[in-house]
Amino acid sequence: MGVVVQLSGSQDAGASLAPLTALVGDDMGHVNRIILDKAGSNVELIPELARHLIDSGGKRLRPMLTIAAAKMCGYEGDGHVQLAASVEFMHTATLLHDDVVDESSLRRGKIAARLLWGNEASVLVGDYLLGQAFKMMVDVGSLGALRILSDAAAIIAEGEVMQLTAANNTETTEDDYLAVIDAKTAALFAAATEVGAVIAERPKHEAAALRSYGRNLGLAFQLVDDALDYSGEQSKLGKSVGDDFREGKVTLPVVLSYRRGNPEERVFWERTIKDGNIGENDLNEAVDLIARHNALADTMERARHYGAIARDALAIFPDGEIKEALLEAIEFSVDRPY
Amino acid sequence: MGVVVQLSGSQDAGASLAPLTALVGDDMGHVNRIILDKAGSNVELIPELARHLIDSGGKRLRPMLTIAAAKMCGYEGDGHVQLAASVEFMHTATLLHDDVVDESSLRRGKIAARLLWGNEASVLVGDYLLGQAFKMMVDVGSLGALRILSDAAAIIAEGEVMQLTAANNTETTEDDYLAVIDAKTAALFAAATEVGAVIAERPKHEAAALRSYGRNLGLAFQLVDDALDYSGEQSKLGKSVGDDFREGKVTLPVVLSYRRGNPEERVFWERTIKDGNIGENDLNEAVDLIARHNALADTMERARHYGAIARDALAIFPDGEIKEALLEAIEFSVDRPY
Repeated sequence: MGVVVQLSGSQDAGASLAPLTALVGDDMGHVNRIILDKAGSNVELIPELARHLIDSGGKRLRPMLTIAAAKMCGYEGDGHVQLAASVEFMHTATLLHDDVVDESSLRRGKIAARLLWGNEASVLVGDYLLGQAFKMMVDVGSLGALRILSDAAAIIAEGEVMQLTAANNTETTEDDYLAVIDAKTAALFAAATEVGAVIAERPKHEAAALRSYGRNLGLAFQLVDDALDYSGEQSKLGKSVGDDFREGKVTLPVVLSYRRGNPEERVFWERTIKDGNIGENDLNEAVDLIARHNALADTMERARHYGAIARDALAIFPDGEIKEALLEAIEFSVDRPY
Repeated sequence: MGVVVQLSGSQDAGASLAPLTALVGDDMGHVNRIILDKAGSNVELIPELARHLIDSGGKRLRPMLTIAAAKMCGYEGDGHVQLAASVEFMHTATLLHDDVVDESSLRRGKIAARLLWGNEASVLVGDYLLGQAFKMMVDVGSLGALRILSDAAAIIAEGEVMQLTAANNTETTEDDYLAVIDAKTAALFAAATEVGAVIAERPKHEAAALRSYGRNLGLAFQLVDDALDYSGEQSKLGKSVGDDFREGKVTLPVVLSYRRGNPEERVFWERTIKDGNIGENDLNEAVDLIARHNALADTMERARHYGAIARDALAIFPDGEIKEALLEAIEFSVDRPY
C-alpha cells in the first residue's frame, strides 16, 4: 500500500479545476438538485445505494463539461442542466457496474456499494440510473443530443466488454488498450461536451470541435488515471493504489513494461496479471519494473499528446473565460496532483 | 516552388532503410519480377501505363515490410513474396486513383500517368492492378491473409471517400484528419505487416503486434509526408512542394495553423484551401503561417508519438537483425531527410 513514485510535473504547477468550477457553479447547484431528486424512488434501496455513491462526491467533471460547453456556445435555455445530470447518471451507472465486474472494494475513498448492498443491487440500481438518464434526455427534447448520448451509452458498454476480453491479457497492444479507453472513458467525455454545442444549435464544426476536445481530454484523463494507480497516494486518489494491478487490469504502464521487459520480467507479469497469483511484495516489484522501463513517464507523455490535440480542437472558439477554464481543465487532467 | 523550411532533426542522424533493404534484397528481387510480370497484359495500354509508375521506383516500403515481417516470424515458404507484390499493387492502384481525384500533375518526380494517358485509363489500370492483387492473394491460399488484405482494400476506399468529404474543409478537426490517414495510409501498412505473421501461422498476439507496428508506422509516415509537403526540397521529395496546398488538402499542418490562427489568418486559409483562390505568393504565406504557429514541429511531434507506439508494439519479438531494421524504419520515417 501507499507506494509512491514521483512523476514528472509538479503539484504546485497550479493548473486546477477551480476556474471551471466557479464558472459553472450556479448551474451545477441545479444539476446536483436534479441528481438527488432523480435518484429518489419509493423503492428505498435505490436512493440509499445511489446516494452512497453520489454523496461521496467525485469531481463531477463530466457534467461540468456539458454546462461549460453549452455556455461557451451561448446556450440560454435550461436543457443543459438536465443533460449534465444525465451525463453524471450515465457515469455513476458505469461506476456501479464496473465495481461489480472488477470486484472492487473501494470507490471514491468509501467502501464500494456492492460490498454493502450486494452485486445484484449494484447492477440493478445502475440500470435504474441509466433509465433515469434517458428519461431526462428525452425531456430535454433535443433529438440530436439524444442520439449522441445514446450512441455513447452503447459504445461505453461495448468498451466494457472489450476490457473484459482484454482483462489479464499481458499481450494486449497499446492500440488495443487505446481502443478500450476510447470507448470506456473518452466516448462519454466526447458526448458530454458535444451535446453542449448541439442544444445551443451551433454549426456542425463547433460540435465536432467540442467532441474532439472531450474525446482527447478523456483519453488524457484515463491515461493519467492509469498512471496514478501505480503512483498516487491513496488518500488523494480516493481509491487504493495498486487496484488495477490486483484486478489484473492491463493498463498502459503494464503494456509498456511487459513489452519492454526481459523474459524473466514477462514471467512476473504473466504470473501476477494473467494468472492473478499475487504475493505480498509483488506490487512493489511491479512499481519497480514500471519505473525501470520509464513506463509511467511515457504514459504521461502519451497523455500530453492527447492533451495537445484537445487544446487545438478548442482553438476555433473565441477567447473567453470559459474557454480558458476548459483549457486549464486539460492541464489539470494531464498534471494532476499525485 | 522550392520553399524550404528547416525541420528539427538532422539529415545526418543516419537512420535509413538500408538495413531493411539489405535483409529483404533477395526476396524483393523476386517481388519485383512478379510485379513486372503481373503488370503485363495483351492490352498494350496496361503494361505501358503501369510500368510508367512502377519503373519510377518509389521506396517499395510496404512490400519490404511484408517480407521482413514474414521473415521475422520464421516463415519459410514463398507466399510472402506474392503477398508483398499484392500489397505493392494495392498501393500502386491507390496512387493511380489518387492522382485522378486530386488532379495531380507530378508523381515520384515524373509526370503523372493521368496526364499522359488520361484519367479514364488511370482509373481502369488501377482497377486492373487491384484485380491482379486479389488474384495473387488467392493463389497464396491463406484465407487469413486474404481477409486482412481485402478488409484493408475496403478501408482504404472508405478513407479516400472520407478525404474527399473533408477536402477543402478548413474546419476539419485533428481527429477527423487522423481518421482519414488511419484509413487511407495506415490500414495498408497494418495489413502489410500483419499478413507476415499470419502466413507464418504465428499466434494471434504476434499478428496483433505486427499490425500495431504497421499501423502506427503508417500514421507517423503520413504525418511526416504531410509536413514535408510544406518543407521538402522538390528533388528529394519526388513531388512538388505545396501540392497539398494547391489541391486544397487539409493536412495536419493546415489543421493546426487554421485553429491556432487569428481571424485574419483564417480568412487566408478559407480563401486558399476552401475556395481554391490561390495567388502567386500564397504558398510562401502558408509556409510562413505554418512556421509562426509551430505547426510543422508539432506535426513531427505527433509523428514521433506514433513512432513510439510502433516501437513498443514490436518489443515482444526477440532481438535480431530484422527487428533492428524494422525499428530503424521507424526512425527513418520520423526523421526523413528533407
